[in-house]
Amino acid sequence: MTTGGKNNTATDAAFSARLAAVADAIEILLARLIDETPVAGERVRPPRLVVAMRHSALGGGKRLRPFLIAETAALFGVPEGRALMAGAALECLHCYSLVHDDLPSMDNDDLRRGKPTVHKAFDDATAILAGDALLTVAFDILARSETHPDAALRIALVSALARAAGVGGMAGGQMFDLAAEGRFGAKTTQDETSVKTLQAMKTGALIRFACKAGAILGGASPREHDALDTYGRVLGEAFQIADDLLDAEGDAATIGKRTSKDDAAGKVTLVSILGRDGARARLAALVSEATLALEPFGARGDILRATARFVADRKV
Amino acid sequence: MTTGGKNNTATDAAFSARLAAVADAIEILLARLIDETPVAGERVRPPRLVVAMRHSALGGGKRLRPFLIAETAALFGVPEGRALMAGAALECLHCYSLVHDDLPSMDNDDLRRGKPTVHKAFDDATAILAGDALLTVAFDILARSETHPDAALRIALVSALARAAGVGGMAGGQMFDLAAEGRFGAKTTQDETSVKTLQAMKTGALIRFACKAGAILGGASPREHDALDTYGRVLGEAFQIADDLLDAEGDAATIGKRTSKDDAAGKVTLVSILGRDGARARLAALVSEATLALEPFGARGDILRATARFVADRKV
Repeated sequence: MTTGGKNNTATDAAFSARLAAVADAIEILLARLIDETPVAGERVRPPRLVVAMRHSALGGGKRLRPFLIAETAALFGVPEGRALMAGAALECLHCYSLVHDDLPSMDNDDLRRGKPTVHKAFDDATAILAGDALLTVAFDILARSETHPDAALRIALVSALARAAGVGGMAGGQMFDLAAEGRFGAKTTQDETSVKTLQAMKTGALIRFACKAGAILGGASPREHDALDTYGRVLGEAFQIADDLLDAEGDAATIGKRTSKDDAAGKVTLVSILGRDGARARLAALVSEATLALEPFGARGDILRATARFVADRKV
Repeated sequence: MTTGGKNNTATDAAFSARLAAVADAIEILLARLIDETPVAGERVRPPRLVVAMRHSALGGGKRLRPFLIAETAALFGVPEGRALMAGAALECLHCYSLVHDDLPSMDNDDLRRGKPTVHKAFDDATAILAGDALLTVAFDILARSETHPDAALRIALVSALARAAGVGGMAGGQMFDLAAEGRFGAKTTQDETSVKTLQAMKTGALIRFACKAGAILGGASPREHDALDTYGRVLGEAFQIADDLLDAEGDAATIGKRTSKDDAAGKVTLVSILGRDGARARLAALVSEATLALEPFGARGDILRATARFVADRKV
């Protein structure tokens, strides 16, 4: 068994070391990709826009999504450089969503990862364009041969990311979230099913994509693909519940962003539906489910199992 | 010769018929693609977001960019359905740029194609998300096998579009444009070279991409590729000068958007640098250059020659 207490401690340490190593590698890679994105002909890049993109994408975050690509791809022996390229693309897309969600006309947040949000550090127009440019460069990165020599496989990544991020995924989830807050008239009625759908789209879709990307890069069998898809879906659910618990219980200084937002906004979350104890029980069940999903990979899945525990227990 | 007066009249009529036919086909295809974008698993699409995307993408515009893909691809006998898919993707991306540029924190426009802009018809948050979703779906569409059966070719389109639209292309051009207006402190000094660079990025890049996309879809030789790249670059310059002349001379009721904006904003354009007569002379020279660039295609390039005349002479 791979879930015993002593082994967990050792695996958790290995997990932490890997998470930090991937974060370091992603930081270096993102800096290079943002500074050196090739341009055609006489075109140049506006320094203010590049600096705003760097402000958003560099110097922060656990880089959990790139880590998930690296770790799922590692199950198949994919060269790490390829997984990091896909991870950098995903992180650019994730950062775009943070920049746009923080805008005054969206969630109106001033603080992100302990720093001023892009529209506070710059201005609204620059933040909109920096988000647009980060979203666009994500596809630029996926299209490069450094991500994978096989174009068919790169196209599979482009397609999967576009669907995870678009109207039926993350962007649609943000729209449902604004509607649930009553931004377009009366608050939409929220029950457990609709909250789960909203969250599966708004935050779950990119986490699920990360695990799918590892399977695509690795040329996974259908069974392995399904296993990682289940793992990614369950991990996304766990991530959001942990996030809602943090919002309810954490303080801004530790977390690096505003807390108690959900309560203040009268927002329905699984924490408000299930209660804090119920939410914690759900989290534990999801960790078990994620662990079980990794069965086809045996002990090679141990770090991903530790990832599920980390996501559920995280304090920041 | 293909540039004689009598032939031009016949070719201009053929051009108009083709432009209208492509616009009709694109309208139908965009409606289908926006309504039926596949979603994964339990995900659904928020109706308000879909309606906002439709508001932006349907019912308007000459569809010049899709037409350019269709017409350059036709030089190589590419099946029209493929060119239309790439054209629909490009039109989604173009529409995203209009939605975001019209926002209050950007150009603050209320009217677009004779209709309220998306943030006026809905709200700022919906407009930001509709733009994001249109940008994302553009890459979704390019990644589909309907666009071309060969994945390597689809990846070439993804890469070229991401670079045309990103920080070194359209988004960067919009940033330079805001800086030129003095939005981030003193107005940046503008001369003919910097104005041309700004415009080559802001509006030229997508027009140039359209012509490049036809060459990619058609498996063009390097010489044909260069010819269409020159044509696209020159056409983009001509398009912008014609646009600036329209802004200086046109009226809002005919054009369907606010005019005299450049003058009111004290904006430097090639019209303000060269004067109206100088700008008209420049336009004529660009039409000649575009015509000349099509030499390798002989009479097959006649409709693209008519396109250059149309772009230079257009009144709306």
